Amino acid sequence: MAKPETFSPALLGVALESEATKPAYQQLYEQVRDLILSGRLPTGARLPSTRSYSKELGLSRTTLIAAYDQLVSEGYLEARRGAGIFVSQFSPEHLMLVNRAAPLVLPKPVAARRPLARPVPFAIRATSPADFPGAEWARLLQKTWRGPIESHFGEPHVEGHPDLKVAIADHLRTWRGISCSEDQVVITSGSAESIDLISRVLCQPGDKVWLENPGYMPMRREIAEKGLEPVYVPIDREGMMVSRGVELAKSARMAITTPPRQFPLGMTMSLPRRLDLLDWARSTGAWVVEDDYDSEFRYEGRPLAALMSMDETGRVLYLGSFSKVMFKSLRLGYLVVPPDLCGQFHNAHADLGPQASSVAQPALAEFMTSGQFAAHIRRMRRLYARRRALLLDQLLEKCSGLVTPQPANSGMHIVVSIMPRLSARHSDVEICRTLHQAGIEAQALSSYYAAETSPGPAGQGLLFGFSGFEEKELETSVSALAATLLCLAEA
Amino acid sequence: MAKPETFSPALLGVALESEATKPAYQQLYEQVRDLILSGRLPTGARLPSTRSYSKELGLSRTTLIAAYDQLVSEGYLEARRGAGIFVSQFSPEHLMLVNRAAPLVLPKPVAARRPLARPVPFAIRATSPADFPGAEWARLLQKTWRGPIESHFGEPHVEGHPDLKVAIADHLRTWRGISCSEDQVVITSGSAESIDLISRVLCQPGDKVWLENPGYMPMRREIAEKGLEPVYVPIDREGMMVSRGVELAKSARMAITTPPRQFPLGMTMSLPRRLDLLDWARSTGAWVVEDDYDSEFRYEGRPLAALMSMDETGRVLYLGSFSKVMFKSLRLGYLVVPPDLCGQFHNAHADLGPQASSVAQPALAEFMTSGQFAAHIRRMRRLYARRRALLLDQLLEKCSGLVTPQPANSGMHIVVSIMPRLSARHSDVEICRTLHQAGIEAQALSSYYAAETSPGPAGQGLLFGFSGFEEKELETSVSALAATLLCLAEA
Repeated sequence: MAKPETFSPALLGVALESEATKPAYQQLYEQVRDLILSGRLPTGARLPSTRSYSKELGLSRTTLIAAYDQLVSEGYLEARRGAGIFVSQFSPEHLMLVNRAAPLVLPKPVAARRPLARPVPFAIRATSPADFPGAEWARLLQKTWRGPIESHFGEPHVEGHPDLKVAIADHLRTWRGISCSEDQVVITSGSAESIDLISRVLCQPGDKVWLENPGYMPMRREIAEKGLEPVYVPIDREGMMVSRGVELAKSARMAITTPPRQFPLGMTMSLPRRLDLLDWARSTGAWVVEDDYDSEFRYEGRPLAALMSMDETGRVLYLGSFSKVMFKSLRLGYLVVPPDLCGQFHNAHADLGPQASSVAQPALAEFMTSGQFAAHIRRMRRLYARRRALLLDQLLEKCSGLVTPQPANSGMHIVVSIMPRLSARHSDVEICRTLHQAGIEAQALSSYYAAETSPGPAGQGLLFGFSGFEEKELETSVSALAATLLCLAEA
Repeated sequence: MAKPETFSPALLGVALESEATKPAYQQLYEQVRDLILSGRLPTGARLPSTRSYSKELGLSRTTLIAAYDQLVSEGYLEARRGAGIFVSQFSPEHLMLVNRAAPLVLPKPVAARRPLARPVPFAIRATSPADFPGAEWARLLQKTWRGPIESHFGEPHVEGHPDLKVAIADHLRTWRGISCSEDQVVITSGSAESIDLISRVLCQPGDKVWLENPGYMPMRREIAEKGLEPVYVPIDREGMMVSRGVELAKSARMAITTPPRQFPLGMTMSLPRRLDLLDWARSTGAWVVEDDYDSEFRYEGRPLAALMSMDETGRVLYLGSFSKVMFKSLRLGYLVVPPDLCGQFHNAHADLGPQASSVAQPALAEFMTSGQFAAHIRRMRRLYARRRALLLDQLLEKCSGLVTPQPANSGMHIVVSIMPRLSARHSDVEICRTLHQAGIEAQALSSYYAAETSPGPAGQGLLFGFSGFEEKELETSVSALAATLLCLAEA
C-alpha cells in the first residue's frame, strides 16, 4: 500500500461550505489562491496529487482539476512534467503586497432601492412617463425584434437604420419643409455626437465658431473641447445678431444657431436675419448649423419652416433630436447634411464608428411611418399648450409685481423677467438657490450667458419648465413659488 | 355692392393641387413664400383680404388664415393694424440671394433599399444575428416597457438603470471574482465614454498613459484627443512588460491594459506581471484600467479572474462591454470604479449627462438576472469553440507552410504568423490587400502597432475572426484563402 501523501498543513485548512452559493471549484480556487498570496503556501511548495487531495476534501477529482487548471493558467501554480504541481516562483515583495495594502473599503450594498428622484416643478424636462404611450412603444419594440433581425444589428449601417432615415426624411418634408433624401440623414446618439462629426468634417482646430449668447451651454463646452474658438454673438428680438457676428469674426468657419426657436429666449429668427445669415455663409464659405431642438411644440400657428428649407446655397446643416418629442434617455438624434457633403460625413462616421444604439431604431421608424409619432406630437402639443396656459395664468394671478412672463408661443419652458422690487435685492442665481431650498426648481437666465460676457440687467430672469407636470402640480407649485418670491422681495 | 378687390397678378397664379399629399395650407404657404422670395410679389405689396382671396381660391378662410399666420410669424408678411397684410420690407440683396445661389443639388432618392453588406469571412465580428436569441430579447423589451415605465426614462439615473447595475455586479462576482457593490458600476455607451469619464476624473492634460503595443487602436486616438500623452509599452508572452513601462515613464498617471486576454495577441497577463503592475500603481499613485473586452469566450478551462479581483490597493478600474457577448450596436458598456472614487465619477457623469440609451437597459437586466445571459454566453462559447477548432484544423490542413496559428485559447479571432516563403515577399498589409480583392477579410497584425514604434518581423501576422461564420462558410473561405496565399508565395 502506498504511503499516504503528506500535505502542507495550510492545505488541510481548505474547507468547502456546502451552503455557499459559489460552486465548489471556485471556493477551492479562491482558498488556494489566498494561501499562496498570503505566503502560507510558500513558493516552490508541491501540491498534493489530484487523486489524494480530492479524496481528502471529499470532492470529485474533476472539480479539483478545474481549480488547479485555473490556478495554473493564472500563473499561481505551475505543472512540471512528471513531477507534479508546484507553487510558482515569484518574489517575496509580490506576496507582501497583499499584506501591505490598505484594507479594501467596500461601500455598503444598497439594501433598499433608492426612491426615484422625480423631477420637481419647474424643472425643464420633456415628456413625463405618464404621458408617453408606453404600451404601444413596447409593442413596436417587440414586433421589430421578433422578426428577421439581420438589419437591426446595425453593423453595416454606420449612418443608422435605413427605415429610420427614410422616416426622418419624410417627417422633415411634412413638418419643416426640408426636401432631403434619406442619404443626407445621419443618425447619431444626440447633439454631442452630431457636433463632433461636424467639427471633424468641416473644421480645423483654432477655427472660430459663432455661438448664440445666451445659448445652450453644453454646446460651448463641446466646441471648446474640440479646440475650436467660440465667438459669442448676442441675441435681440429677431434672434442672432448676424451683423454683430460679422463685426466680431467675419471669417468664422461656422455659426451654430437656433432659428426656429431661440434657446433659451424663445424668439424665431426673423426673415431678414435668416437671409443675412445665409448670405454671410455663401459669401465667406462658412457653414450654418441649425439646431432645431423643440420647435414641434409651437402652440399658435403651425410649426415654423426650418432655415434649411430656404437654403439654396447648400451651406446649412440641420440638427434634430428625439429628446423632446420622445424622451431624453432614448439617446437618438440626427443630422441632415447638404448633398455635397454626404460622402465626407459617411467616411468620418465609418472611421469613428456609430455611437447610436440600434435597439430602438426600427421601432422608432415604425412609430413614425405609422403616424403614431405625429399623433403623439399633436397630443403632447395640446397637453403642453394647456399646461403652458395654466402656468401663465397662474403666474399672472399669483406672482404679478414679482415676475413678468415674456412673450413666446412655443417650447417647453417660459422665461420670466424679474420685477424691480425683487431684482433690486437679488440676482436670478440667488433667487434660484432660495427656490431650490423651498423645493422649487428654476433656471437662472444669466447662467445661459457666456462667462466672458456681461449681459447686464437684461440677462437676469427665470426659466420655468411646464411640460412634465400635471395641472394640479403646477397650481400648487406656483402658490409655493409666489410665497417664496414675496418673502424674498420683502426680506 | 362693394367693388371686387384687385389682386396682384402673381397671386392669381397660386393654385392648389387637390391630388397633392401636402395640406392645402402648406401648398399655399409655399407658393406665396416663393413669390416673395423670387421678387414677383414685391416688398410693400398689400395682400388681398382673407375673405376675398379665400373665395377666389375656393378655399376655407381658416386655411388661408393659417398660411398668412405662418408667413407673418416667419417675417415674410406683416400685419398693419386696420390696414391689412403686406409683404415685409427687406433689401433687394436678400431677394437676389435666391437667384444667385447655385441650383440645389439633391441626390437621387434611393428607390430600392441597398442590400445589407453581410460581413465577409474572416472579419472580426461578434455575434451573428442568426445566433442571437432575438425572440426572447423581443419579449423582454416588450415586457419591460409595458409595465410601469417611470424608471426607464432614466433621467434620475445618471449611472444607468438600477436593476442593470445590480445584475452587472452579480455577473462580475460569479464570472470574474470581482466583489463590487452596484454603486461602483457606471453604465456607459461603450469604452469611448468610459475612457472619457476616466480621463476627466483622474487625469490632467499632458499626463502620460501606458498603452499596450500592439493594442486597440481607437483607444489611442481617444487618449490623444483628451490631450494625454500615450506611452507605448511592449508585450511579450506574459503580457504588458511592466518593467519597460517603468523605464519609459515611471511617473505615468495611468496604464490601460488587457490582462485577461491581451488584444490582439491573446495571452493572459502572468501573475508576476499582475503583481508588478499593482505594485507600480500602489507605489507611484498611478491608476490601472483593466479592459476586459471578451474574456467570456475562453475555450479551455474557466474564465480567468480579473486583475481587479486581486487588487486590494483600490487603484484598478474595470472596463466591461456588452459588444461581444450581446451585439455591438447595443452600445452599452460599463465601468467599475474603486469604492473611494464613486462620488467623483457620479459628479463627472452628472455634469456630462448619461450617454447610454435607457431603452434596452431594463431588458438587459432581466436577461442577466433570469440566467439567460449566462446560458447565451455558454451557448456561444460552445459554438465559437467549434468554429475556432474548425478554423485551426482548416488552416493547418490547407495553409501549412504559408501561415502558422499562434497558440491562444480564447477570444473571437486567431493570430497567425506568416511563414518565410510568404513573408520574404510580402508584408502583412500587402497580403491583406490582396485577400480583400479576393473577397476575404483579414487584419494585418502590424496595423495594431503604434506608428512611432517599429515592431520588426515579429509584428507581422494576420488576424482571422471566426465567431460570426458558419462552419461551411469557414471551410470554403479557408480554401479560397489558401489559394490566394499560395499564389502570393509563388508570384
